[in-house]
Amino acid sequence: MSRDRDPIRVALLGCGVVGSQVLRLLREQADELAARVGAPLELAGIAVRRPQRHPEVPAELLTTDAAELVGRPDVDVVVELMGGIEPARDLLLDALKGGRSVVSANKALLAEEGEALATAARDSGADLYYEASVAGAIPLLRPIQQSLAGDRIRRVAGIVNGTTNFILSAMESTGAGYADALEEAGRLGYAEADPTADVDGYDAASKAAILASLAFHTRVTAADVYREGIRDVTATDIASARALGCTVKLLAICEQVGGSSGDAVSARVYPAMIPKTHQLASVSGAFNAVFVEADAAGPLMFYGQGAGGPQTASAVLGDLVAAARNKVIGGRGPRDSAYAHLPIQPIGEVRTRYHINLDVHARAGVLAAVASVFAEQGVSIATVKQEGGDVAERSSTLRGGREADADDAGHGGDAGTDATLVVVTHEAADAALRATVEALSGLESVRGVASVLRVEGLGRPVHALGGAQ
Amino acid sequence: MSRDRDPIRVALLGCGVVGSQVLRLLREQADELAARVGAPLELAGIAVRRPQRHPEVPAELLTTDAAELVGRPDVDVVVELMGGIEPARDLLLDALKGGRSVVSANKALLAEEGEALATAARDSGADLYYEASVAGAIPLLRPIQQSLAGDRIRRVAGIVNGTTNFILSAMESTGAGYADALEEAGRLGYAEADPTADVDGYDAASKAAILASLAFHTRVTAADVYREGIRDVTATDIASARALGCTVKLLAICEQVGGSSGDAVSARVYPAMIPKTHQLASVSGAFNAVFVEADAAGPLMFYGQGAGGPQTASAVLGDLVAAARNKVIGGRGPRDSAYAHLPIQPIGEVRTRYHINLDVHARAGVLAAVASVFAEQGVSIATVKQEGGDVAERSSTLRGGREADADDAGHGGDAGTDATLVVVTHEAADAALRATVEALSGLESVRGVASVLRVEGLGRPVHALGGAQ
Repeated sequence: MSRDRDPIRVALLGCGVVGSQVLRLLREQADELAARVGAPLELAGIAVRRPQRHPEVPAELLTTDAAELVGRPDVDVVVELMGGIEPARDLLLDALKGGRSVVSANKALLAEEGEALATAARDSGADLYYEASVAGAIPLLRPIQQSLAGDRIRRVAGIVNGTTNFILSAMESTGAGYADALEEAGRLGYAEADPTADVDGYDAASKAAILASLAFHTRVTAADVYREGIRDVTATDIASARALGCTVKLLAICEQVGGSSGDAVSARVYPAMIPKTHQLASVSGAFNAVFVEADAAGPLMFYGQGAGGPQTASAVLGDLVAAARNKVIGGRGPRDSAYAHLPIQPIGEVRTRYHINLDVHARAGVLAAVASVFAEQGVSIATVKQEGGDVAERSSTLRGGREADADDAGHGGDAGTDATLVVVTHEAADAALRATVEALSGLESVRGVASVLRVEGLGRPVHALGGAQ
Repeated sequence: MSRDRDPIRVALLGCGVVGSQVLRLLREQADELAARVGAPLELAGIAVRRPQRHPEVPAELLTTDAAELVGRPDVDVVVELMGGIEPARDLLLDALKGGRSVVSANKALLAEEGEALATAARDSGADLYYEASVAGAIPLLRPIQQSLAGDRIRRVAGIVNGTTNFILSAMESTGAGYADALEEAGRLGYAEADPTADVDGYDAASKAAILASLAFHTRVTAADVYREGIRDVTATDIASARALGCTVKLLAICEQVGGSSGDAVSARVYPAMIPKTHQLASVSGAFNAVFVEADAAGPLMFYGQGAGGPQTASAVLGDLVAAARNKVIGGRGPRDSAYAHLPIQPIGEVRTRYHINLDVHARAGVLAAVASVFAEQGVSIATVKQEGGDVAERSSTLRGGREADADDAGHGGDAGTDATLVVVTHEAADAALRATVEALSGLESVRGVASVLRVEGLGRPVHALGGAQ
């Protein structure tokens, strides 16, 4: 019966890593897809830049004129797998304005132009789906937007970038420095030739913008997301984390903060230490995991492969089936509901915790000086640990006839003796923490700041599998 | 603008643990829900058995006549939270035939009458949603039915019952026997006065039927699900598991088995040992976790609270928003697509692994006799371990002047000396494994079968957070 219905005509934009998998799945699962949609899916055309690179695609489907393809009156759904802001933006706006539904995997575009696209869809009655733009194969946007449509989401946080996750995992397991780990990632196919989008956090920031927009019914663009990548994560950072029983992860954190009046949205991406006992700590390599906390549902976790051709194609096809079905029955996808218009909380106001590793001179007054800086900023200290400096340097003080006791900052007086001071703060405004670090680096007794990392998940209820609940 | 639209009228059937939470959320979130639906949600009435027990509900909404409420022409969506097969079945069939969409949390009903309900919905154009019937707050049905609509699901497996999970966790952590752990569960509110539905696996079997039906596009009813509960799980089982580095969980496992022709569906519920390193091993208490494996998406995991008033209400409201929105815009939910009509694989043909703990006489020939039984059934042994019997009994053999060496089954000859033989098999047809156990218990040298448990997840690729991927 499904085959008697008029086919749903699909235009595919791009046929690369993901597009070729979409094409394969459309072919291999044609009958199943028809049964699930209620009508056969038919390709109207595939727009690519270089047709000669696609010998596996029937020539009559190939075109270099994406604009023409998108404008054909017989096209029902446009699947965009090109990436990049332009020309995807103009093509998709044209498609939506013409009433053609859109399925996209384009995180950068959705994070920047989500509003314009949603408006065009709403006005024409077309659908706009983009599950594939975040977290690869993991169903995440549909749960947030639809399953939790009757709940109040408070927080969406997790690991959404496989490249940086792989690099940090490698640094941890092998002790390698950032540069070496990045090279290994490239060699193994986890990083692209130009890894900037991943390692500088742009990819994660786009995804955070999309997640926050849906979770908090507020337009959040990539520019609204505070972003730090992993270029400055060092082997010392990794070792510091290990000493604290933590591991370093690039986290995307989206929260609704504040009270019932004066709510705001915080969205940020940065590398942070998390306890090894936390569920996110054991997510490695290309896997992603995202926690969603909602008032009634409580804590939820979604886990799976966050990237890859087949994985992303799975998400694309799920959306395509939904869009195609709506064309068959005359239905529509979920209502775009960015009605809340919450302000974006500046990073300075976000309450975070810092782990600070200082190289200091082991002399009288250092601890007092350091502690005073924290006090001036109103930052409360949770833990502090001082460790002696280099043994050779300690030995050199013996020649002067005085033992330098590296465990007592009040002793000695030899300017060559160093120590390490490790401080973990309580929660404080990020601006105060940042000002604290600045002031510390200016202290005479501080030789340098060896490591600064935010700390997440320490001391909060850990929704660990099997942990405190 | 949303408030100018005609309200969507909702009939609530039942106002217990879940219904009262649905009522609360409808009130507290009225504005947000209206923004997300595109029209206000209005309660048409609430059907309960004893109105006097609901002083918090406006009297004008209460009715004892559910059939009348469901038949009112102004009702758009019926939310059923009564539970049980009847009268829910007739009420929902009436609602659907009249074009009223249904949102249900009724696992027993959906597992038994899913086909009749789906047919009524399809014929009238009404929606049928039942996310809340499985895994509480965790979005699971929508991901399976919609997000993975373009993929081929191979396996859905995990922990879907919090009562039994709590009991088994308690037995493990305290060494308590089943009866004591069950009593503790009741005391803490994890088990009902009559815990049969949970401890005998009926709850899990209903959920497995629903999951398998959606995952494999084949009608699977509760009766199709092989079901073993946890009543016969002993402290010995738990200890045996621990010795193997495993833990015991009640698992629901749904798989598509066989080749491209001759595919079949396997759906089963039973307690099994799983490696402590497996992600499911650390899911404790009221939390559920379900793995979904699909061809393109790969392994996915969904985790969260599987029961509770607010948690289940979250799932109900997500479906209610979807159903209400479809009423506003004239759309429809996902197409019921049980087109595959795959046969159900009998449990005897399911390939499983057994862990068998035998009390044996420590005499010559025991191991040979036992091994022969396995050989006769064609069951391959993976590991075998023999341990000596009771020290007092060993000491008693010394009086006879002969040392009984408990580590060597070929020694001794004293009929009072016992030993333990622990065998873990390779995969074999469950029927062969069951026949093996039967034959073993009939051996003269076997005093008794101390423990038999299936083993899952051992030796397969473990999609552990951080484990082999």
